[in-house]
Amino acid sequence: MRMADLSHASAVPVATVKYYLRAGLLPAGEPTAATQARYGQAHLQRLRLVRALVEIAGLSIAEVGAVVACLDDPPTSWHEVLGAAHSALPPHLPASPHDEASRSWQLVSARDWRVTPGSPALGLLDRALAAAASAGMPVSGQVLDVYADAAHDVAVSDVAGVPTSGPEDATRHVVIGTIVLEPVLLALRRLAQVDASARRFS
Amino acid sequence: MRMADLSHASAVPVATVKYYLRAGLLPAGEPTAATQARYGQAHLQRLRLVRALVEIAGLSIAEVGAVVACLDDPPTSWHEVLGAAHSALPPHLPASPHDEASRSWQLVSARDWRVTPGSPALGLLDRALAAAASAGMPVSGQVLDVYADAAHDVAVSDVAGVPTSGPEDATRHVVIGTIVLEPVLLALRRLAQVDASARRFS
Repeated sequence: MRMADLSHASAVPVATVKYYLRAGLLPAGEPTAATQARYGQAHLQRLRLVRALVEIAGLSIAEVGAVVACLDDPPTSWHEVLGAAHSALPPHLPASPHDEASRSWQLVSARDWRVTPGSPALGLLDRALAAAASAGMPVSGQVLDVYADAAHDVAVSDVAGVPTSGPEDATRHVVIGTIVLEPVLLALRRLAQVDASARRFS
Repeated sequence: MRMADLSHASAVPVATVKYYLRAGLLPAGEPTAATQARYGQAHLQRLRLVRALVEIAGLSIAEVGAVVACLDDPPTSWHEVLGAAHSALPPHLPASPHDEASRSWQLVSARDWRVTPGSPALGLLDRALAAAASAGMPVSGQVLDVYADAAHDVAVSDVAGVPTSGPEDATRHVVIGTIVLEPVLLALRRLAQVDASARRFS
C-alpha cells in the first residue's frame, strides 16, 4: 500500500507517519519511485503499536525506540520482548541498586516469582509500600500476602490473554492491557469494598 | 489542651487549625477566656482526619465538610459514615442515572454485592470498561470475573482491617487505606505479570 493508504488504515496522519519513519520507529518502505514507497502489513502492525505506545501508554519517542529496537533485534525470546515493553511503561523510576533486604525482593523470593533483580516493578512496589507507611498505614505481611495472591490471579489471566499471532500484536496487547485494566481493577476494588462494608457494618 | 498543643500534637499549623475551625470542620473548643479555649482528644482525632482527607486524599474543604457532617449528624450506621468518606474520594465523576443494563450493575447483581444504585464506584467501573474498549481492549466477561474475584479478596481484607476504636479513626483508615494501597496493588500486578510472562514465554 502507499503511504496515504497506510495513514488511512492506521488512522495516523501522513505527517506523523513521516516523523516516525525519520525517527526510525517504522522501517522504510520498498521504494517504487524517487519519492514513493510501498508499505505492507508489517508496517501497519508496527504503526499500530507505535501509536498505542505513544497515545495510550504515553511513552516518549526515545522510549518507543527502545521497545521497537527489541522487536527488530533478534534473537530475543518473547519474554524479553514483552519485558522491554513492560519496563518502558510509566511511572518511571530512577534505577535503584538491587537490594536483597527490600520487601519487594523478599516477597519475590518467598513466592519464587521469576523476576530479575533490575525489574522496575520491584522499585515500584517498594516506593508504594514506603508511601503507605509514611501516610500512617504500614502494610503488614498478612495484607501484602492477600494483595499478592490477588495480583497473581489477575496477572496469570493477563498473560494468558497475550496473543501469539506476532510480536507486534503481543507487545501492543501487553502495553494496552497493563495500562487500561489498572482503573478497572481499582474500580472493582472500590465496588467490592462497598459490599464488604455493608456486610461488616450494616 | 490549648490550641498551641493541639497544633503540636497534630502537626497542623495554628493558622490552619483556625481555618478549619472557621470552616466548621473542627468543632469549637470549650471557652476558658475571651480569646482562649480548651481542646480535647476528640478535637485531635478530628484534626488528624481532616488532615488525611486534605493532604492524602486531596479532598476540597467542601468535600471534607460533607464527610465530617456525616460524623456529626447521628444516628447513622458505620456503613453510612464510611460510605460517605468513600464516595468523597477522587476521581470524581458527574452523577449518572441508575442504569440496570450497565455492566457494573449486572456484575453487582450477579454477585449479590450490596451496592446501592447511586454508588460512584459503579460509574467508575463503567467508565474504566468503556476506556478499555475504546483503546481496542474490550474486557471479556471471563476476564472481568477474574478481576472481580481478586478485587473481592482484597476488599474483604481492607474492610476487616478497619478499626472500631471510633468513627474518626475508622473514616481515616478507609480514606488512607483506599488511596495508598492502590499503587501497592498495581505494583504487585506488574511484578506478578513479569513472573507469569517468564513462565509462559521463556
